[in-house]
Amino acid sequence: MNEFPDTVVRRTASGPVAPSRGALRPLGLDEVRITGGSWGALQELGADAVIDHCLGWMDRIGWIRNFDRIAGTASGDHEGIEFVDSEVYKLLEAMAWELGRRPAAPLAERYAGLVDRVAAAQDSDGYLHTSFGHPGQRPRYSDLEWGHELYCHGHLLQAAVARLRTGYDDELPAVARRLAEHLWTEFGPEGRDAICGHPEIEVALAEFGRATADRRWIELARLFVERRGRRTLGTTLFQGSDYFLDDMPVREASVLRGHAVRAMYLAAGALDVADETGDDRLADAVEAQYRRTIERRSYLTGGVGSHHQNEEFGDDYELPADRAYAETCAAIGSLMVAWRLLLRTADEGYADQIERTLLNAVLVSPRHDGRAFYYANTLHQRTCTHPNADDELSERAEASMRAPWFEVSCCPTNVARTLASLAGYVATTDGAGVHLHQLVECELRAELDAGILAVRVETAYPRDGVVRITVLEAPDVEVGIGVRVPGWATGATLDAGGGAAPASPGLAVTRRIFAPGDELVLTLPLEPRLTAPHPRVDAVRGQLAVERGPLVLALEDVDLPVGVDVEHVELDADAPLVATDDGAQATLRIRVDSDLATAPDGPVPARLRPYADWANRGPSTMRVWIPTAR
Amino acid sequence: MNEFPDTVVRRTASGPVAPSRGALRPLGLDEVRITGGSWGALQELGADAVIDHCLGWMDRIGWIRNFDRIAGTASGDHEGIEFVDSEVYKLLEAMAWELGRRPAAPLAERYAGLVDRVAAAQDSDGYLHTSFGHPGQRPRYSDLEWGHELYCHGHLLQAAVARLRTGYDDELPAVARRLAEHLWTEFGPEGRDAICGHPEIEVALAEFGRATADRRWIELARLFVERRGRRTLGTTLFQGSDYFLDDMPVREASVLRGHAVRAMYLAAGALDVADETGDDRLADAVEAQYRRTIERRSYLTGGVGSHHQNEEFGDDYELPADRAYAETCAAIGSLMVAWRLLLRTADEGYADQIERTLLNAVLVSPRHDGRAFYYANTLHQRTCTHPNADDELSERAEASMRAPWFEVSCCPTNVARTLASLAGYVATTDGAGVHLHQLVECELRAELDAGILAVRVETAYPRDGVVRITVLEAPDVEVGIGVRVPGWATGATLDAGGGAAPASPGLAVTRRIFAPGDELVLTLPLEPRLTAPHPRVDAVRGQLAVERGPLVLALEDVDLPVGVDVEHVELDADAPLVATDDGAQATLRIRVDSDLATAPDGPVPARLRPYADWANRGPSTMRVWIPTAR
Repeated sequence: MNEFPDTVVRRTASGPVAPSRGALRPLGLDEVRITGGSWGALQELGADAVIDHCLGWMDRIGWIRNFDRIAGTASGDHEGIEFVDSEVYKLLEAMAWELGRRPAAPLAERYAGLVDRVAAAQDSDGYLHTSFGHPGQRPRYSDLEWGHELYCHGHLLQAAVARLRTGYDDELPAVARRLAEHLWTEFGPEGRDAICGHPEIEVALAEFGRATADRRWIELARLFVERRGRRTLGTTLFQGSDYFLDDMPVREASVLRGHAVRAMYLAAGALDVADETGDDRLADAVEAQYRRTIERRSYLTGGVGSHHQNEEFGDDYELPADRAYAETCAAIGSLMVAWRLLLRTADEGYADQIERTLLNAVLVSPRHDGRAFYYANTLHQRTCTHPNADDELSERAEASMRAPWFEVSCCPTNVARTLASLAGYVATTDGAGVHLHQLVECELRAELDAGILAVRVETAYPRDGVVRITVLEAPDVEVGIGVRVPGWATGATLDAGGGAAPASPGLAVTRRIFAPGDELVLTLPLEPRLTAPHPRVDAVRGQLAVERGPLVLALEDVDLPVGVDVEHVELDADAPLVATDDGAQATLRIRVDSDLATAPDGPVPARLRPYADWANRGPSTMRVWIPTAR
Repeated sequence: MNEFPDTVVRRTASGPVAPSRGALRPLGLDEVRITGGSWGALQELGADAVIDHCLGWMDRIGWIRNFDRIAGTASGDHEGIEFVDSEVYKLLEAMAWELGRRPAAPLAERYAGLVDRVAAAQDSDGYLHTSFGHPGQRPRYSDLEWGHELYCHGHLLQAAVARLRTGYDDELPAVARRLAEHLWTEFGPEGRDAICGHPEIEVALAEFGRATADRRWIELARLFVERRGRRTLGTTLFQGSDYFLDDMPVREASVLRGHAVRAMYLAAGALDVADETGDDRLADAVEAQYRRTIERRSYLTGGVGSHHQNEEFGDDYELPADRAYAETCAAIGSLMVAWRLLLRTADEGYADQIERTLLNAVLVSPRHDGRAFYYANTLHQRTCTHPNADDELSERAEASMRAPWFEVSCCPTNVARTLASLAGYVATTDGAGVHLHQLVECELRAELDAGILAVRVETAYPRDGVVRITVLEAPDVEVGIGVRVPGWATGATLDAGGGAAPASPGLAVTRRIFAPGDELVLTLPLEPRLTAPHPRVDAVRGQLAVERGPLVLALEDVDLPVGVDVEHVELDADAPLVATDDGAQATLRIRVDSDLATAPDGPVPARLRPYADWANRGPSTMRVWIPTAR
């Protein structure tokens, strides 16, 4: 067993992740305020639409009433699958972040009412679950593989962390403490030697330990991480030990595998445990696994987990565009891991990966009105399907349109909590300066070793490449202002007052004594560019994608001549790409076959638009990778 | 309802399929005797190894004992999933064909003993199933979606058909008659309006009706076909109505979709019903569906059903090599459909498809010793895995080695019954002559309208391209001898005694008065050839395959320099392909990357061998489609 190292006492961040150590301290929601631009719009979408949408659905279909049934204030059967409690908890987490960002009485009331109903369902010994352990239900922990009890508990703890980090130690944290005590008794050093089929409890306990300054929860997280990989979970006809990441100890693996969401949540929890226990070997192992995974098992969009079967990773370089599962929640899990690695290492490559993943693999999920979502995210849609009605519960949305709600509805609430905590992923400090990792319109105010540094960031990025940073307040000693130059941005310049100078990818730091009114201007080239796939990705050989800045662009048939779909096009890679207001114009040729009797003979100009925006103009076919003319 | 047309009285074939009408009458196992060559070896493998292997496994793991438990002669719980009865029935079918082909006392004894045990489990009203309807079990027909009761019943009827067609009307046909009476009561015109989640009962009842000359069974098959497509089967989170082919009436669909085995079995049954009821519209609809399926949803090997998820068809042209599911049973289902369409239409394209599918997609399944099998059949294996031990029960064999037995073990017994009835797929007659569809070493003796025509066929095909047909007996009037020239065989010649003359693909017919000793010699070009994928198949764009005659060839890493796997090769498409004794030699270049530090610099000659033979020399990586050098 590892010794508990002395914890470096540092200011607790008010965002989703707060490691005790690491190269960078994240700036919290009290330190970064998103003021507008594209991320501001996302925040508003989350606040105005997504939270309301999730609450309405879960109220309507009885998932909230499940708690009343346990409390004895409602009758009837449990509604939904075993783990719908977790959706309520993820929504509570989203509401807590939102209330922390911008308190509002109506939301606070809805939040408090919902917490009351959850709290009333807690058993006297702290256990809390609406599917197990009560009359007529299966016994507690009788189905560790599939019951998702600890998974649900983890999301409850995460919701409590959000509440604590936004300044309230009230009812939900009290419920969470009672639950954590129960878990300590049940699964702690003196308890049963077992794990949950779906990781989540690990990352949740670690954050709960940080937020409550109680090292027992970190120790319990450590136990769950270390117990994994001994094949104690029963397998099935379809799901082997690797599905559960139970095939080998976390620290012995070389790559993420199995169920992609499970893999990412476990990796995040293992990094938290490693940071809190000083276990660098564990952290290095997870970092190497993640790097290899991104290099060989992630899509251009940042999406991960290519197999529909089991929602699993495929082999290295097995990345079909048309069968890309790329679950929204797996992409969110990838954000969680990349953010932790950025905090640990200060490697801006992780910030690049966060941007790529968020802007493409995550934001493709919500419809523009925030009331329908993709669960799986293909990169190539061959056939149009009918949209789901706005009141229709879907099995899965694998088709060409988003669905309002799902039998397994993990993605909408995951999007909700991510949008509500976006400001927590923008910037960090190393004590000597601030690092602006995401190019977002915001104001930030950080306490450095030398005093307060506050800046305003103005930008229309990613539509425009100019990012203007104005100093609002600064200590009168030398400090640093760093801003990320994305990996794709060859030709970027930074003007720190002395004229534009070339800025290469990575963190461009200006270190001096700043005065209010000082300006830094980063200018990024936003010319559309052709991207070739890795030569070992068989599935898209002979095809090219078009990117512009951080955005992957896509071709939809609604932007093609009537009757032509995306199966009949070839990209003229020699013709120039022309920037448009929201993407690029490329030159295509139409290939005629038995499905397409006639078509324009010559070159056809066609607009490519951001992948994340696709299927917002009715059913369509779509492709990211386009065959090149031969 | 259709009127029953007057049945054309014709000799009943002694093979697996015996339509009352159609362009061609199949020659049965009493008319075609395979005498050697590659098909002869397969027949021996089935007789000597596969049947014994299946019997041994099902005895050992209690699937046969399930019948004793129902009969009250054994105790304990039911072993295996709900539909393991069907494996015993498919094995009984294989044993019946084998006994018909070559009676042998030891096999006859094992067969009779097994039939006794099955018969003892039949309920007094004819129902027969070891998972439903008895004390402690779920009620009969309480789970039509997943219970597979009628599916199992269908395979019992098929086993009885094999027994009847090989000349015995004994215990198993009696059991089957009682079962059919039960089904008529339960599901007939006066019974419940329901269908089974897994088609099979349709094709089985149709053949049983033909074999017993009782039209009630054909009418019941018709009812099951017509009832399908009204969404009466309950769907699940993962399986929609299309999975069950229950999304639209059979006659209204334009392509096969959903679960591939279900789709093929249903199509075969619908064709049988159409032939027996004179419903040409139904037959034409199924033919169009199958043609479109083969054109757009089948692999080069003939394999169908590309999705692992649900074992389903994908979209048109969605044919990933690396995620090819291509279940062995689906390929066998495709043989069943193609054979029926060949009999109906006399279009030799269906015989081409049968050959392609059998020699590549089906025969890849059994290991060379007939004691391990592929269930899913990838066309691209990136990583080596450990072989299953010979006594290890597998979940699925998706890995690089075959497995001896599976929890769902439909494929080994399906291979067994196919190998045992191979002679039934070789030749037909239209009354005026014989058509040799498969180029197999055999003797055949057919009763034509004008009398007996008997020939001997000698060939080492597909290793050698010469097929020699010698007349043994002929009527003294003009008759025809037709032999299929495969679709790929440009440059074939036929020498009917007057010197070699060009023979184009299709049936090459020689019509004259033959005398014993007359010879026809077909010579097929067997040069290896490059095959390009359809331009709309994204997954293998920029790649080529090598074929030789009817065989798809594959590259295995065991034929590459040490340390090089199939991920690092490019095919030099300009270098000549050289024929070898079992395939071809091609010229490759090795592409070096971080996984492969050093490799031969220049061109590397490499042997490609038949796809069906891969992974018979230990674990290996493999690919059919090879990237072309750029």
